[in-house]
Amino acid sequence: MYTHIVQYYETDKMGIVHHSNYIRFMEEARVDFFKSIGFDYREFEKMGIVSPVVGLNNIRFRKPSTYGDEIQIEVRVKSFNAWVLTLDYAMRLGEDLIFDGQSSHCFLSSEGKMIAVTEAKFPEFHKKLKELIVE
Amino acid sequence: MYTHIVQYYETDKMGIVHHSNYIRFMEEARVDFFKSIGFDYREFEKMGIVSPVVGLNNIRFRKPSTYGDEIQIEVRVKSFNAWVLTLDYAMRLGEDLIFDGQSSHCFLSSEGKMIAVTEAKFPEFHKKLKELIVE
Amino acid sequence: MYTHIVQYYETDKMGIVHHSNYIRFMEEARVDFFKSIGFDYREFEKMGIVSPVVGLNNIRFRKPSTYGDEIQIEVRVKSFNAWVLTLDYAMRLGEDLIFDGQSSHCFLSSEGKMIAVTEAKFPEFHKKLKELIVE
Amino acid sequence: MYTHIVQYYETDKMGIVHHSNYIRFMEEARVDFFKSIGFDYREFEKMGIVSPVVGLNNIRFRKPSTYGDEIQIEVRVKSFNAWVLTLDYAMRLGEDLIFDGQSSHCFLSSEGKMIAVTEAKFPEFHKKLKELIVE
Repeated sequence: MYTHIVQYYETDKMGIVHHSNYIRFMEEARVDFFKSIGFDYREFEKMGIVSPVVGLNNIRFRKPSTYGDEIQIEVRVKSFNAWVLTLDYAMRLGEDLIFDGQSSHCFLSSEGKMIAVTEAKFPEFHKKLKELIVE
Repeated sequence: MYTHIVQYYETDKMGIVHHSNYIRFMEEARVDFFKSIGFDYREFEKMGIVSPVVGLNNIRFRKPSTYGDEIQIEVRVKSFNAWVLTLDYAMRLGEDLIFDGQSSHCFLSSEGKMIAVTEAKFPEFHKKLKELIVE
Repeated sequence: MYTHIVQYYETDKMGIVHHSNYIRFMEEARVDFFKSIGFDYREFEKMGIVSPVVGLNNIRFRKPSTYGDEIQIEVRVKSFNAWVLTLDYAMRLGEDLIFDGQSSHCFLSSEGKMIAVTEAKFPEFHKKLKELIVE
Repeated sequence: MYTHIVQYYETDKMGIVHHSNYIRFMEEARVDFFKSIGFDYREFEKMGIVSPVVGLNNIRFRKPSTYGDEIQIEVRVKSFNAWVLTLDYAMRLGEDLIFDGQSSHCFLSSEGKMIAVTEAKFPEFHKKLKELIVE
């Protein structure tokens, strides 16, 4: 579980967190999630692999959050097929679900070519992600 | 058609626009769209009406953009039923579609209550949005 | 001492943290500093007091930082005279000083009027800040 | 003269533009200034030259601006000595000066080495900047 503490500069004139910032909180939580399962995103980059966001789906801004709030973010693997990884996010303030949604990612080499994260080529990472798929 | 010129501070270490910024470009284009059909968002706010984003759907980051690029953004009304407005966005660099997706919005009073944008209460705005629905 | 862990979205196409973000890190560290001396910025806001930044001085970007770096930020009181508070910041990566500079702040009521943070009106806060002045 | 139209996402919960964003507006205006005197920043980058901000001085946030405001930004050359360029900025809403300050820049090669922008090596750019020094 990742915690983001809302900064003043993340609020807007409605007095609440600007919606675009949740997309950034997703990234923070994602990086933390990878780290928690043993994969440091910086290590990927050193190997010449980047994993850009290719899509966002079912993003729901359910309740507002504001300055000083501690947002708890849960990340789960929704699907993974070597070419595309889809993660699911739930953000909460206490018991209240304030945000949920999914991000999809591909894997690119330093030349910008699509990489298949197969069991043969990336055994540990592949296995770990397969194990973690929910439902 | 709205044009966003990519700023240096909108890029990230991949050398391209950070994906979260497209959500901000959607907002810029939306404000411009409302203005183009005769509704200044600041006027809404003066009347005590805000229109927060409640959802994002089918967001696709198709191709990268980078510093200095001129992104053309087209906004269209996908659906509107007095409670929820859904807008559709297409962003292009020249002929290339680089981004598409939808945002959904509700309408809130200054006390945070849901407002129905009915024909009776908001005749001009209601009529205009109904007319503009595509398909 | 406050720690900011650099996020991916804070980098730019030079591969390093965009300079504007250090101004945001100053804010994060300042809020944490106030909290550490017993003053929660949200409490000020509830009392109708805000403390905007009125100036930045001697800002030096000495060395770059990048994604994943843990920046240690030290905040000290440089001067305070009831109307204006000046804070001094030093940011470090390990032993390396990467950033230093000052911010100046006034105090405003909810009507936007200047407030003097005198010993008579704000005894604890006044005393604490006076005590903490360095040199 | 460069114009920045304030976006909703640039405001904070005080209802005004967050101070860190003015540092970004400085960058926008600087890029535009270079372009106006015949130097496209992207061309520098293609030649392997970057010009990072090394300092900010005498930054004064004099009056607030908010959503929808059209900020006029004037950029002038304050000093230039082949190693360091200092620019001066004045931002106005109508007649009102709302912001002023300076940024200093060095020049780096793609290997991160300091470059001297001498008359011998960069005759046009050097001459232009020398001519434009105010006072």
